[in-house]
Amino acid sequence: MFNYRMTVSYDGTDYNGWQKQGNTKNTIQGRMEQVLRLITDEDVEINGAGRTDAGVHALGQTANFKLKKEWDTKRLIDRFNHNLPDDICITELEKVEERFHSRLNAKGKIYVYRIQNSISTDVFNIRYMYHFDKTLNIDAMREAARCFVGEHDFKSFCSNRHMKKSTVRIIKSIDIVENDNKIEIIYNGNGFLYNMIRIITGTLIEVGIGKRDVSEMTEILKKKDRQAAGMTAPACGLRLEKIFY
Amino acid sequence: MFNYRMTVSYDGTDYNGWQKQGNTKNTIQGRMEQVLRLITDEDVEINGAGRTDAGVHALGQTANFKLKKEWDTKRLIDRFNHNLPDDICITELEKVEERFHSRLNAKGKIYVYRIQNSISTDVFNIRYMYHFDKTLNIDAMREAARCFVGEHDFKSFCSNRHMKKSTVRIIKSIDIVENDNKIEIIYNGNGFLYNMIRIITGTLIEVGIGKRDVSEMTEILKKKDRQAAGMTAPACGLRLEKIFY
Repeated sequence: MFNYRMTVSYDGTDYNGWQKQGNTKNTIQGRMEQVLRLITDEDVEINGAGRTDAGVHALGQTANFKLKKEWDTKRLIDRFNHNLPDDICITELEKVEERFHSRLNAKGKIYVYRIQNSISTDVFNIRYMYHFDKTLNIDAMREAARCFVGEHDFKSFCSNRHMKKSTVRIIKSIDIVENDNKIEIIYNGNGFLYNMIRIITGTLIEVGIGKRDVSEMTEILKKKDRQAAGMTAPACGLRLEKIFY
Repeated sequence: MFNYRMTVSYDGTDYNGWQKQGNTKNTIQGRMEQVLRLITDEDVEINGAGRTDAGVHALGQTANFKLKKEWDTKRLIDRFNHNLPDDICITELEKVEERFHSRLNAKGKIYVYRIQNSISTDVFNIRYMYHFDKTLNIDAMREAARCFVGEHDFKSFCSNRHMKKSTVRIIKSIDIVENDNKIEIIYNGNGFLYNMIRIITGTLIEVGIGKRDVSEMTEILKKKDRQAAGMTAPACGLRLEKIFY
């Protein structure tokens, strides 16, 4: 078998997330597998490193798949992109050693959550940013974000109630960058639970408007209860930027 | 009557252009007038400075309208934006002297045409850039662009065959800026004919791929025939940036 690794970018607005699951139609993975089968005539499964939710975007999702046939990568990427819809694009494709697995071998991930913090909407970013018109105290948000850096049990920040595996994750850094009413919250970690970034972001926003105090953050972590944390910020603001190996 | 001037930005993808005309439904002007009537209960007409085509965007369209009633501008802009769809946003609104007319008083306009010049699509800009994957000779395009600067009869660059008014316009500058496979062609002029920027852009692209020589530009102008010029570049790449008074 030949193993191929690719970098994929997509506008997730019109999809039910990355992962194919049961009857869920119109996922990025499902759509890509369909095209790959059409091109290669092989029954193939694509493994994505990050299982982005419905409406979440990716600049640098990494995925791999195995084929019986050896392909010229330039030809494969051309045919692949030619048959994919405009909102999914493979930006890199290469042959890798057979044991490479995009999810299992991933060492870290960067996600960015984008907020348009102004009264006016930026009409050119409605698909890619969360428009929030109340004033945010960025310094308080930065202070609150610091409480999540390091190794913690993030059970309070996970939407999956039936999660049986460990909910301990390491966040290496959370940086908040403000530029002309656009706020980027940059998350760098070894892995993230279902909805984890969106719930942390929602909680940070609640700190930003003064609804919650920075001192509550440690308590929320301790409670290990989703109800203790803040709202789940909308999917449109989130983008998977890069996977590290 | 009280005269109001506003700056409007819109994503033109889902509209049949700015101007309401006959049975054409779903125009920016039509949509805005509908909302304004709902708010003010007055039968009002909105004058836009630039009549953008179907699918063309605007960052800083300027428009004015007259109302019998005097409104607090803050309250009017809030109610207006609240009732407009997400892809249209008023960014400024002020009371102006009664004789101000956004189109008749306009002294100049800036439009920008954006090209994504790479093999891969930028999935986050498919609505706002023309994806063109052949290599472009930017220097040749700059040289060709220089032929259009100044006062010229742009009849060859006008799609309206029944144009009876003067087709003479002044282009102050055409700047081509290249950045990371993204090309911006910045047009600054006193006014532009129907499809004029898109036809000049299409012609410049044909120079960029070597299909036309720079020396042809002056001939095309002289011919005063639409057939002499190049293709009409797609609407999605064009955005009205600013109107000068």
